[in-house]
Amino acid sequence: YGRFGLDYNEANKNVIGRSDTNITSRLRLQFDMSTETDAGVVFNARVRMQSENRDGNPGRSAPGGDNGFNGARFGVSYGGLTVNVGNIIGAIENAPGLYTTTISTGTGIDGMDFHSLPIKGMNGVGWYWDSYDSDGMGANGIEALYTFSGFTGHVSYSRNNGGTVAGEAKGEARTAIMLTYSFSDYYVTAAYQSSENGPTRVINGKTVETTDGITFAAVGADFGQFGAKLAYGDTEEASSWTLEGNMDIGAASNVVLWVNSTDSEVSTDAADGTAYGINYQYDLGGGATLVAGYVDTAANDSQFQAGVYFKF
Amino acid sequence: YGRFGLDYNEANKNVIGRSDTNITSRLRLQFDMSTETDAGVVFNARVRMQSENRDGNPGRSAPGGDNGFNGARFGVSYGGLTVNVGNIIGAIENAPGLYTTTISTGTGIDGMDFHSLPIKGMNGVGWYWDSYDSDGMGANGIEALYTFSGFTGHVSYSRNNGGTVAGEAKGEARTAIMLTYSFSDYYVTAAYQSSENGPTRVINGKTVETTDGITFAAVGADFGQFGAKLAYGDTEEASSWTLEGNMDIGAASNVVLWVNSTDSEVSTDAADGTAYGINYQYDLGGGATLVAGYVDTAANDSQFQAGVYFKF
Amino acid sequence: YGRFGLDYNEANKNVIGRSDTNITSRLRLQFDMSTETDAGVVFNARVRMQSENRDGNPGRSAPGGDNGFNGARFGVSYGGLTVNVGNIIGAIENAPGLYTTTISTGTGIDGMDFHSLPIKGMNGVGWYWDSYDSDGMGANGIEALYTFSGFTGHVSYSRNNGGTVAGEAKGEARTAIMLTYSFSDYYVTAAYQSSENGPTRVINGKTVETTDGITFAAVGADFGQFGAKLAYGDTEEASSWTLEGNMDIGAASNVVLWVNSTDSEVSTDAADGTAYGINYQYDLGGGATLVAGYVDTAANDSQFQAGVYFKF
Repeated sequence: YGRFGLDYNEANKNVIGRSDTNITSRLRLQFDMSTETDAGVVFNARVRMQSENRDGNPGRSAPGGDNGFNGARFGVSYGGLTVNVGNIIGAIENAPGLYTTTISTGTGIDGMDFHSLPIKGMNGVGWYWDSYDSDGMGANGIEALYTFSGFTGHVSYSRNNGGTVAGEAKGEARTAIMLTYSFSDYYVTAAYQSSENGPTRVINGKTVETTDGITFAAVGADFGQFGAKLAYGDTEEASSWTLEGNMDIGAASNVVLWVNSTDSEVSTDAADGTAYGINYQYDLGGGATLVAGYVDTAANDSQFQAGVYFKF
Repeated sequence: YGRFGLDYNEANKNVIGRSDTNITSRLRLQFDMSTETDAGVVFNARVRMQSENRDGNPGRSAPGGDNGFNGARFGVSYGGLTVNVGNIIGAIENAPGLYTTTISTGTGIDGMDFHSLPIKGMNGVGWYWDSYDSDGMGANGIEALYTFSGFTGHVSYSRNNGGTVAGEAKGEARTAIMLTYSFSDYYVTAAYQSSENGPTRVINGKTVETTDGITFAAVGADFGQFGAKLAYGDTEEASSWTLEGNMDIGAASNVVLWVNSTDSEVSTDAADGTAYGINYQYDLGGGATLVAGYVDTAANDSQFQAGVYFKF
Repeated sequence: YGRFGLDYNEANKNVIGRSDTNITSRLRLQFDMSTETDAGVVFNARVRMQSENRDGNPGRSAPGGDNGFNGARFGVSYGGLTVNVGNIIGAIENAPGLYTTTISTGTGIDGMDFHSLPIKGMNGVGWYWDSYDSDGMGANGIEALYTFSGFTGHVSYSRNNGGTVAGEAKGEARTAIMLTYSFSDYYVTAAYQSSENGPTRVINGKTVETTDGITFAAVGADFGQFGAKLAYGDTEEASSWTLEGNMDIGAASNVVLWVNSTDSEVSTDAADGTAYGINYQYDLGGGATLVAGYVDTAANDSQFQAGVYFKF
């Protein structure tokens, strides 16, 4: 898909040599491949090319100066069971209610730093959990997903090289689990990640592991024209609540409102406090959607974006 | 498209460890995507992958060792009006008569350093104006094109991060305009670029901005079998004239002759003086074209190329 | 195609921070383009994108952090004659019997370091000859292939920039030739590469050119259900024999057994001695193949891989 628009971000007022108003754009090409054996087992692979421009930097996602492909994900499916290796989805990432029900899965054109997410680290969302990386190599992981009736279970594991022992990979290793149950128009979900050898940070004189012990839980409902969710996330650095509501207006419009309240271990943390946002979408037809979003962050910086998404 | 051939370049005689005869090749894949809304507005995006080999360096266009995609251009069109953002075309680049009417838009297989262009800096063509970059990120720009009857107007603007002021992008900013009027078999065109915070150079004790105040004008005609143009370009470093004529010979052949005269501010400049070139094309059918070109540069180095272009 | 599986490699026990059991995977996209002139000459080009994960490093083939395209190969064919430029195949690489008759052209999922190849340098196969590079830029070469009746001839030449002489490319230059004759179910082949300005190594007090004077010869047979080959390779560093046999079992299975005996100039060389391997393939239908391989190297490290290949 393609998307582009204008971004006004008050936080850029503090960055030397960067304007507060910039073009934000992304072009993403996705290549999905699959084949099915005679016994009904499906093998598949996915790879993406992404070209992004943000904050006045057109080569944002192009290390070395060229836009390339991300790390591939390989999967095998049989019935309700799927096993993926490589650039995996991640159990926490896959939890319903983590992202907003908007086209950018955040606010505005490019998500606007995803202040709506309730899993917060110092200075905001740090993506401390394993997640599919559309631009880089992603996790070196393996995961299993099982769906049966309204129940979905998801276990993921990733590991990095490292450490000082020959023959053992003692870099960061992450294990995560997600369970979801859906019934009629409602869902409840919970997810947890534990991590070994991960990054640490000293907070109030105590050393914490930033990617260890991440908890997420959410309840949500979708009645067609209306929807709402309440989500909670907890890390070693902050606990956070997000309440979201969305409503269709007429045949082509949708409005999403959310408010996030974060209690950081450090009171001077920019993520500590209350943030809220509003997202408006209007379907232009032919796969094109007009999107506008406004966010007031916990640090009281305002940000506004308006632009267009289109599928092809 | 693909193209490959042999390149003999006398100027390489002065480069240590490089032969005067090399393979020159390029493979370019272009991905164009578009969608149309119910109201008739068209959104589109373009991205290119390019693999090049020149002067004995097969990884020429592959920073980091892999050939990737360039920066994307996004556009929206309605009627005769088009607005693009990202890796824009550029107003001067879009002026008719700037490039030659050959398949390489220069001479030979790879343009042979485009000595035919009348916008010259020190040591030759420096591409001081915004132009679509098939290999890198291109300009971080926005442009508007309007076509009505025989008239075409084009305004482009690009800006880079930089400077020492928080909240403002004080890197180089370029504004350019191009106007063209076509009537029966003739066209006249003029284009101008002004630049702020651009690169500077000291010439004859005076500091000039190399990308500021670029003027281009051309008149041309195309009578089918015959064609001709006269083009003039002026920069802070040099003024330059190019006269070009082209003729179809029989059903499949075409010959282009051009002569360029450049008056540089510095008489020892390699671009100062007269250069001329000849380009021969023969249509092989099936989208393949045989191309041969010869250039004698202002520094009296001769260069010869012969090879093949093919579309697929 | 895509492929992924698990790799157990005893040799990784000696590498700090790396596990002996890893995911091995590769996703490869190939773009082939061609066009034919009215006179029957065919022009073509090939480029590949490859994303690989080995030994716990998901970004293995991604210099700069993004997976890009390799260097392009361009070709022109007329009748039995083909001329390629760019990222060429290479005359030795093209010799039948050099690789094994398995889906990975080696053992297991990713070839397992190709211990089966009889052209050995210090520490194993060093790919001292020109060969098509699926990930990098490959050789800066030109080659001619001619096929007539059961006879195939192949001459390749590549050259790199370098040296201290202006106007001459005095980097490494390689010339190689391969001749093959096939009759009924048998083939005989011989190939040779000579090199100038190539890398050198001091062995037993003598300086040798590692990529110069490479000889390869093989005889093979394929009777449908059974096949066998005997291959010999000689470099300045080692001489080596490989005997291979393969057999179809039932409708969907195939087993390949090989043994390699290498006599290195240095007796402490890890490649010196006898290695053997076994590869099992089972056709799952729909373009998917189950592959398992076991190798015992000359240094007595064992390695095991099992996984899946699939075409799409």
